[in-house]
Amino acid sequence: MSNQIAQRVQAEALKGFCAQVFQKVGVVEEDARLTADILVAADLRGISSHGVAHLRRYVEGLRTGTFAARPLEQVVTETPVMAVIDAGAGLGQPVSYRAMQKAIQKAREVGVGFVSVRNSNHHGVVAYYATMALPHDCIGLSMTNASPKVMPTFGRKPTLGTNPLAIAAPAGKQRPFVLDMATSAVALGKIEIADQLDQPIPEGWALYKDGLPATDSHRAMDEFKRNLGAGLLSLGGAGELLGGHKGYGLAIGVDIFAALLSGAAVSPLTYPKTPEGKPLPANLGHFFGAWRIDCFRPVEEFKKAMDDYQQLLKNIPKVEGQDRIYIHGEKEYEAEERHLREGIPLNRQVAADLRALAQELQVESVL
Amino acid sequence: MSNQIAQRVQAEALKGFCAQVFQKVGVVEEDARLTADILVAADLRGISSHGVAHLRRYVEGLRTGTFAARPLEQVVTETPVMAVIDAGAGLGQPVSYRAMQKAIQKAREVGVGFVSVRNSNHHGVVAYYATMALPHDCIGLSMTNASPKVMPTFGRKPTLGTNPLAIAAPAGKQRPFVLDMATSAVALGKIEIADQLDQPIPEGWALYKDGLPATDSHRAMDEFKRNLGAGLLSLGGAGELLGGHKGYGLAIGVDIFAALLSGAAVSPLTYPKTPEGKPLPANLGHFFGAWRIDCFRPVEEFKKAMDDYQQLLKNIPKVEGQDRIYIHGEKEYEAEERHLREGIPLNRQVAADLRALAQELQVESVL
Repeated sequence: MSNQIAQRVQAEALKGFCAQVFQKVGVVEEDARLTADILVAADLRGISSHGVAHLRRYVEGLRTGTFAARPLEQVVTETPVMAVIDAGAGLGQPVSYRAMQKAIQKAREVGVGFVSVRNSNHHGVVAYYATMALPHDCIGLSMTNASPKVMPTFGRKPTLGTNPLAIAAPAGKQRPFVLDMATSAVALGKIEIADQLDQPIPEGWALYKDGLPATDSHRAMDEFKRNLGAGLLSLGGAGELLGGHKGYGLAIGVDIFAALLSGAAVSPLTYPKTPEGKPLPANLGHFFGAWRIDCFRPVEEFKKAMDDYQQLLKNIPKVEGQDRIYIHGEKEYEAEERHLREGIPLNRQVAADLRALAQELQVESVL
Repeated sequence: MSNQIAQRVQAEALKGFCAQVFQKVGVVEEDARLTADILVAADLRGISSHGVAHLRRYVEGLRTGTFAARPLEQVVTETPVMAVIDAGAGLGQPVSYRAMQKAIQKAREVGVGFVSVRNSNHHGVVAYYATMALPHDCIGLSMTNASPKVMPTFGRKPTLGTNPLAIAAPAGKQRPFVLDMATSAVALGKIEIADQLDQPIPEGWALYKDGLPATDSHRAMDEFKRNLGAGLLSLGGAGELLGGHKGYGLAIGVDIFAALLSGAAVSPLTYPKTPEGKPLPANLGHFFGAWRIDCFRPVEEFKKAMDDYQQLLKNIPKVEGQDRIYIHGEKEYEAEERHLREGIPLNRQVAADLRALAQELQVESVL
């Protein structure tokens, strides 16, 4: 099965490989390196759905021109506290990196900073950007909209993106808090895995094209793959009973900051096509923010309070069958430590893709 | 039953009554009027759980001194983009109103503004403050932490607050978008209503004190009332299967902005007591933010895009049995129009409380 681990590779080698691949299809060295670093950072953190598994898709986009290899990236508007950047339809990672750097720089200078980005592409794992704030003793925020896959509450057409958001805040002796969440109940990858493992899916993840609760992962995945109209559910599930309207509202909130403020496409209108069906640039939007903690309160006090809060949460009694309360980001930090030691696991499909890319582009394979 | 409508009262009369009540227990006129306005605004919007139903509790707090009637409210720190305010243990509404005003003023002057508040109390419906940004063509954000009632993922002790957040953004011809959500699946009020109506509750709302899913509203409500250890579940429900860790993470996020930045108590430590069990000031934290839209993009463009987005969402096909897609805030705006016409419905319990307060404090009753 495609999700079995085929082999492991060291992070640095994988980064070097990806950077070479990007340069081979016309990306400048700095952007190639940034995109490679951010893709591999996702694999390191165990979020393989947002890592090098995307390399093939990015390369195809760069080759066919829906991604600009050498984009005209421009700061459209800027004040001491904010900016809007047009990404020029380039790779999402380098512009997001620079946008978050700018937000942090503003926070260092005046206390807060916000940058909204338009005309961009998929930018990998959204938490990467929020965590850039941590070494600067800032709280980081990042969001992005995404292709329409999610049903609005009471709707039965995939309309909203999974529109993830991330919040990162530093601690003292404890690890930082890093929330990274799609505003849908799950990402499509979870249904894909259930499909591959021949398992059912719980009600609350998705609806079939007819609007009924999806429980058969094969049927759901088939409808997704053939664009028949199946859709993911918002965080909180179908209807309003368990709060599905809240996940739906958060998804709109992300579109407001990432797309409506920047002038990008709102999630239902991302990834447009020509009348002939040819893909046009995705026109995704992102939003980045930073708050400098020491404007509000001495950093050491904040970090101590953060440590105490984490300890308090971890020490409460657990439900039957569980022996640990997690703080957000903890699992990913642990995965990163493990993968730095043992190498990054790649499944058969991804390994095959990377080898094929190496051959096509005449880059030395690391597999 | 206590949730049956006993009678209706006009909003202005109710505001006047509440303001007089607050003045009778020592609150200055401006704060009495603000608190009355904000309480009644909740009833107008149909959120009766956050309206005048709280009047008795506030009055008791003011009489016994856990709420300061004439608080020493102080701006602790301030820069052109942010401030921290100590509420001096006064009513939550007036300080929140002034804090949001300050955030908006900063946004008007420099583009964005943020105010974190500590040492405060319950401040009513959180969306009230976010919507204050709308007439200024700003996006508004408001959050507050709350008393510990929610189980962290895998935990079985009520530890987090329902920690609600609100986002408000203006539209053109359409109504503004106003998201107002607890980060728990539901508020306790929903279980209270099920208990009164003799109805079961769905799995995903709460856990009994033993950590098992609560479905019997009587048992759950009894355990809540007697503080035996029942708890609400985070948005996304129990465990991680349907995303409960996301609601849990959002609740921590609210504590970070509202309490860790301001120096208020994090939600598990709010409403402290003396060793003898006497209630001390709640030390709640709030957070308010505003972004001036025209720094990013011409306001008319933003509003037009917001209208188009709402139309697009409303026009998609509906699931069986539903004929309408809602935009957040719409139901509340409609309730407000209805209640302005027909008067605010009060249930028996609330009506009785108000009449009793009128008598005790020698204020003319409006019921």
